[in-house]
Formats: sequence, structure tokens, C-alpha cells
Amino acid sequence: MEDKATATQHPPQEMSPARLEAFSDAVLAVIITIMVLALRPPGGNDIQALKTLIPELLIYALSFTAISIFWVNHHHLLRATRRISGAAMWANLHLLFWLSLVPVVTAWVGEQHASRWPTAIYGSVAFVASIAYVLLTLTLRAANPDTRLNAQLGRDIKAKVSLALYLLGIALALVFIEPVGPLLAFGVFALNSLIWFIPDRRLA
Amino acid sequence: MEDKATATQHPPQEMSPARLEAFSDAVLAVIITIMVLALRPPGGNDIQALKTLIPELLIYALSFTAISIFWVNHHHLLRATRRISGAAMWANLHLLFWLSLVPVVTAWVGEQHASRWPTAIYGSVAFVASIAYVLLTLTLRAANPDTRLNAQLGRDIKAKVSLALYLLGIALALVFIEPVGPLLAFGVFALNSLIWFIPDRRLA
Amino acid sequence: MEDKATATQHPPQEMSPARLEAFSDAVLAVIITIMVLALRPPGGNDIQALKTLIPELLIYALSFTAISIFWVNHHHLLRATRRISGAAMWANLHLLFWLSLVPVVTAWVGEQHASRWPTAIYGSVAFVASIAYVLLTLTLRAANPDTRLNAQLGRDIKAKVSLALYLLGIALALVFIEPVGPLLAFGVFALNSLIWFIPDRRLA
Amino acid sequence: MEDKATATQHPPQEMSPARLEAFSDAVLAVIITIMVLALRPPGGNDIQALKTLIPELLIYALSFTAISIFWVNHHHLLRATRRISGAAMWANLHLLFWLSLVPVVTAWVGEQHASRWPTAIYGSVAFVASIAYVLLTLTLRAANPDTRLNAQLGRDIKAKVSLALYLLGIALALVFIEPVGPLLAFGVFALNSLIWFIPDRRLA
Repeated sequence: MEDKATATQHPPQEMSPARLEAFSDAVLAVIITIMVLALRPPGGNDIQALKTLIPELLIYALSFTAISIFWVNHHHLLRATRRISGAAMWANLHLLFWLSLVPVVTAWVGEQHASRWPTAIYGSVAFVASIAYVLLTLTLRAANPDTRLNAQLGRDIKAKVSLALYLLGIALALVFIEPVGPLLAFGVFALNSLIWFIPDRRLA
Repeated sequence: MEDKATATQHPPQEMSPARLEAFSDAVLAVIITIMVLALRPPGGNDIQALKTLIPELLIYALSFTAISIFWVNHHHLLRATRRISGAAMWANLHLLFWLSLVPVVTAWVGEQHASRWPTAIYGSVAFVASIAYVLLTLTLRAANPDTRLNAQLGRDIKAKVSLALYLLGIALALVFIEPVGPLLAFGVFALNSLIWFIPDRRLA
Repeated sequence: MEDKATATQHPPQEMSPARLEAFSDAVLAVIITIMVLALRPPGGNDIQALKTLIPELLIYALSFTAISIFWVNHHHLLRATRRISGAAMWANLHLLFWLSLVPVVTAWVGEQHASRWPTAIYGSVAFVASIAYVLLTLTLRAANPDTRLNAQLGRDIKAKVSLALYLLGIALALVFIEPVGPLLAFGVFALNSLIWFIPDRRLA
Repeated sequence: MEDKATATQHPPQEMSPARLEAFSDAVLAVIITIMVLALRPPGGNDIQALKTLIPELLIYALSFTAISIFWVNHHHLLRATRRISGAAMWANLHLLFWLSLVPVVTAWVGEQHASRWPTAIYGSVAFVASIAYVLLTLTLRAANPDTRLNAQLGRDIKAKVSLALYLLGIALALVFIEPVGPLLAFGVFALNSLIWFIPDRRLA
């Protein structure tokens, strides 16, 4: 009976994704919540004071949504996963590293509003995090050759569209003058979020 | 045996609420705890210095209680839930977004004490979060047509009373002069907390 | 089969402590870690700069130990618990509320060193948290009349000694002159930690 | 049936590592994420402003990697563990204490760049945390005399190399002049990370 209990929790041959999910959940939860620390309460006590906070609130909402999308996709991805590998653990930590920079670039954009470089760097961090997500799916696919993960992830059109939109946004921020370029870029980033709101039917 | 293990953890047809619960727990835990970062230690080292902290302590206790109520209700709600949907995941993230603003408005009220607008915005965030909670129950009801969730949530009188009380508090804060209006509003918000202290028998 | 799965996760008649444990773990993890944010890196770059940090490091270590003791005791207590009640959920949140004030009083003591009132308030928060822990054990005992929790918790001598030591420390801090009283108080608080290092054999 | 359920969750004779894993995950997640709070967004809005952040980004990446390595090793170690003891709980909390100081020393190094003492203290905290990890493995080995943990951990060459490299880095930081010594030290710390990137085959 002891052996059975052990086998359930710690299969000798393979690693279940349970603890990787738990750790990722905790890190993402902290990332998504500490971003709010950059939102300083307005200095005054009237409704005007609140208005100065609106650009920061909008960028906070955008970053909250972006992290949420990563969490939802991560959830669907791991649900279709039977086992993880050492490479998948590192690919997952690599993804979390880039996502952990989102609060910093969010605070930077919040302070500098529609400036060229903060906007481009914001998009770049999101772009690299998306690449890191693709790497994670590749390591999980390699570790799970026998699951439906393989057949279905081959058609990951949405992820490619998302990567292209981030590149487009970065280019817009840098090419056009301020504040036109940065505002166009954030329009593209917001559009990018919208396409992910449709739940991923392949893994649902 | 492998197939069984997979089926237990990742049922192909439906999503269990386990990871949604875990992520929500982590986000709520961070929200409830980072609020305390707004409580700066008093500047002096005598008991007088501590007294200046009392209004901030009271509003912190109120916000701690409000987040606790959301957690307890969330706990009861998910316990009666068999499966979640993509819509429920997004409704849950939407709820967490509004709750993540509670530390900001708590810090604002703590700094500006019984001021009109901070009080009204505080009530508004709690009101919108309550609406978001109702939306979450609707998505879970749609995803669980066969569970007792359906029959019982129809009579959710307490939630309606709570929404009405938040609106009343916001109106009081704006209509009456300072500090009378804001103080009345916080009295109503505290009363609102008290009605939730009685555990929800329907789902218990 | 579906019914079975549901029954395992959500027994209709009783609440398992799983999610209460998970939430408490997350809150305690955030509390224990954000305390470190009060430790500002020393201003200079030599070893002297570090020495100024030593009193804050010591009080941080004491608070880290105190929260750890609550976690270990909480772990042992919940392990002996079969089900929770609404009252137990609120008693647990009440305990977490007082523990969430530990980082604030730790930062206060760290800034004001061996001052009378910060020391007394520090001890008072720990004292009230210990009372809250006793209340939690009472609600769990009421919810689990049939488990070994009942027979064994009756002899909780250690908890009573701990409460008495906190009171002694508070009295010492207030009665004797600075810095003698506060230093004696912290000696008693450290001693209080030591008696908890011996794992609780009753529930182990 | 009730007895069975209880036995699964709370075996009377031994403690499973589940909650210790969950708590450690949460603490490590907070540690790894609050480090990012030390990364202040650059003051300006151009690419030059970002360049001033590069040394801090590098040290953040190094600390993120170091905490990640501890998490991966902790994951492998606990996976090979069947039960924990009171001593293992305290050894684990002791490890978390030293790791909780990593954000402080990371911020210190980030502010003081390639200074002698911040570098040496940085290495010392990592060194002592590594010692704490070894102590944790010893307590787990004592609590699990019958598992494969015992036979395999005896050959822990990698851990010994790691401890030696930390000592070497500390010595380099103190012996050579600034900024040569500190830069050499960080080269050694980075090398130390690289040797851990190879997943631990013994426990995999």
C-alpha cells in the first residue's frame, strides 16, 4: 500500500506536471499582482486627481490581460500534457523570467506614457515571452510524443499571428513620431489581446 | 494504467476547477497581503505615533474583510462546481482584475481619510467586483447545468442586498458633506461585510 | 464515474481542509517574504554599511521564525483535521489578519530599534495572533468531534506557556527603561521561539 | 469510506511532503518575483536610459537563475522523498530563510555594481543557502531510510563543486582590486549556474 501511494505521487519513470503548474501559478499570481504596486494612489482627493491615473490604469489593464492570456494558454497546454522533462522545466522558468519583466516595463510605460522606446521595449518583452512560450510547447511536445498535444499544436496559427502583431507594434512605435507611433503600437497590442480571448478550441 | 492516470488528472472532455482555484487562491493571497505594504510604520517611537495609523488600520481591516468574503464565497461557489469553461476562466480573471485594484483604493482612502471621491471610488471598485462575481456565477451555472448550483443560486438575495448597499454607500459619500458622507458610507460598507459573515448555508 | 470524481473533490456533506491549507500557505508565504522588503540594502558599499543592518536582520530573523512556527503548527493542526466549518474558515482568516500585521511591526521595530512602544506592540500582535490560533483550534475541534484532535489538544501546555511569555515580554518592554526593557523583551520572544522548535509530538 | 479518505490525506504515521512542497513553491515564487521590484524603471524615456539598467538586469538574471536552480533541485529532491519529519520541515524553513535574503543582496549589488563587499556578501548568502540545502537533504535522507534517495545522494559531487565555486568567488571578490575581483567573482557565480543547468540524472 505504501508502494502504491508513492507510485501515485512520485512515479519513478516520469515527472507529472503538477508541481510545475503550482509553481507557475504562484509566480504568475505574484507578477500579475505586484504590477498594481506601480499604481500610486493619486496625490489629491478629488476626481481630477484620479484622471491623471487613467493612462497608467489602461496600461495596467493591458498587462493584466497579457499575463492572463499566458496563464490561460499555459493552463490549456499543461492540461494536454502527461509528463514533463528537465528541458521543459527550464523552458518554463525561461518563460517566467521574461514575464517577470512585464511589471518593470509596465511601470516604465506608465511613467513615460506614449514614448517611443518604452513602448518598443514593452512590445519586445512581450514578443520574447511569446517566443519563450513557443519553446515551452516544443519541449513539452518532445516529452509527450504520444499525446494529442502533438497533432494539434502543429496548427498553431494564432501564436504566429500574435508574434507578427508584436513585431508590427514595435515597428510602429519606432517608425512614426510620438505620440502617434506609440499609440498605434498599443492599439496593435490591444488587438493582439483580443484574438486570444477566443478560447483555444484545440486543447479545450 | 497510464491512461487512467491521465484521465484522472486531465479529463479529455471537461476542465476541473482545481487549477483555477489554485491560481485564484494565490492571486487573492497576494492581494490581501500587499495591502499591508501601504501601512507605513509610524515615524516616531511612542504610542502617539501609532494613533496616527488608526484610520489606515481600520480601512485595511475593512479591505482585508472584503477580500476574505470574496475568498469564502469563491470557495463555496467552486466547491459546488464540477467543471469550468473558457468563459468561466475569463470571468474569474475579470473578477481578480477588479479585486487587484482594492489595494490601490485602500491606500488612497488611507491617505485621504474621509474624503468624498476616494470613498466613492473605493465603493465603486467593490461594487464592480461584486458584479464581476455575479458574472462568474452565471458562467459557472452555464457550465454546470446538472449540479445543485443551478437550483440554489437563483435565490441569491444576499448578493443583491450587497450590491444595493454598495450603491447606497457611494451615494452617501457623494451627497453629504465631508466628513459626514464618507463616514456614513464606510458604516454602510462595514454593515455590508457583516451580512456576509453568516456562512452561506445554500452551498455549505 | 462522473459522480465518483465529483464526490472525491467536493463531498456534499463536508468541507475538506485542502483549499484552506492552500490559501493559508500562500498568504503565509507572502507575509514571510514581503518582510524582507523592509530590509533596505545598506547605503554604502563597505562592510561597515552592512553592520548598520544587523539589528534589522536580527528582528527579521525573529519574525521569520515566528511566522515559521505558526506555519509548522498550522501544518500539524490541519493534518489532524478531517473537515472544516464556516466558523473555522473565519477563524483562520482572523489568524491570517493578525499575522499580516507582523511585517508592519517588524519594520517599525527595525527602524526604532530597542524602543519601548514598538517592542510592546510587536509582542502584542504576536500575542493576539496566538489567541487567534487558539480560537482556530477550538473551531476545528468543534468541527471534528470524532478525531484524535480532541483528546490531544486538551493538553496544550506549550501554547499556554507561549501566551504567558508574550505577556511577560510586553510587560518587560514597558516597565524597564530603554534599552534594557525592550532588549529583555526580545530575549523572552526569542526564548518563546525556541520552545516551539521542538516538534509537537502530539500531532506529529 | 470516511476512514479511507482520511488515511489518503492524512496518514497517521507519516507526513507526506505535499504541503511542504506547496509552501516552498509559494515562498520561492514570491522571492523570485519581488526581486524585480528592485529594478526601478529608468528615469528617462530613451534607449540610453535603459542602458543604465543593464548591470542591474544582469544581476537580476543571475539571481533569478540561482533561485530557479534551487527550485529545480528542490523539485527533484522532494520527488524522491516519501515522507518528511519535523527536522526536515525546519531544515526547509532554514533554507527558505537564506534564500529570502537573495533579493536584498541582489538589490545591494545592483546599486553598488562591482564593489568588493556587496559581491562577497552576495556569494556568502548563496554559499550558506547551499549549505542549508545540503542539511535539508541530510534530514530527508534520515526520514527516508528505505528510498533510493539514500544510495544516490551519497555521490553528490555537483553540490560540492558548487560550494567550492562560491568560496572561490568570494575569495576573488575580496583579494583582487575593484572592479577586477568582483567581476571575476560574478564570472565564477555564472559558471556555477551553468553546471546546474544540466538536469540531475540521479533523481530525474
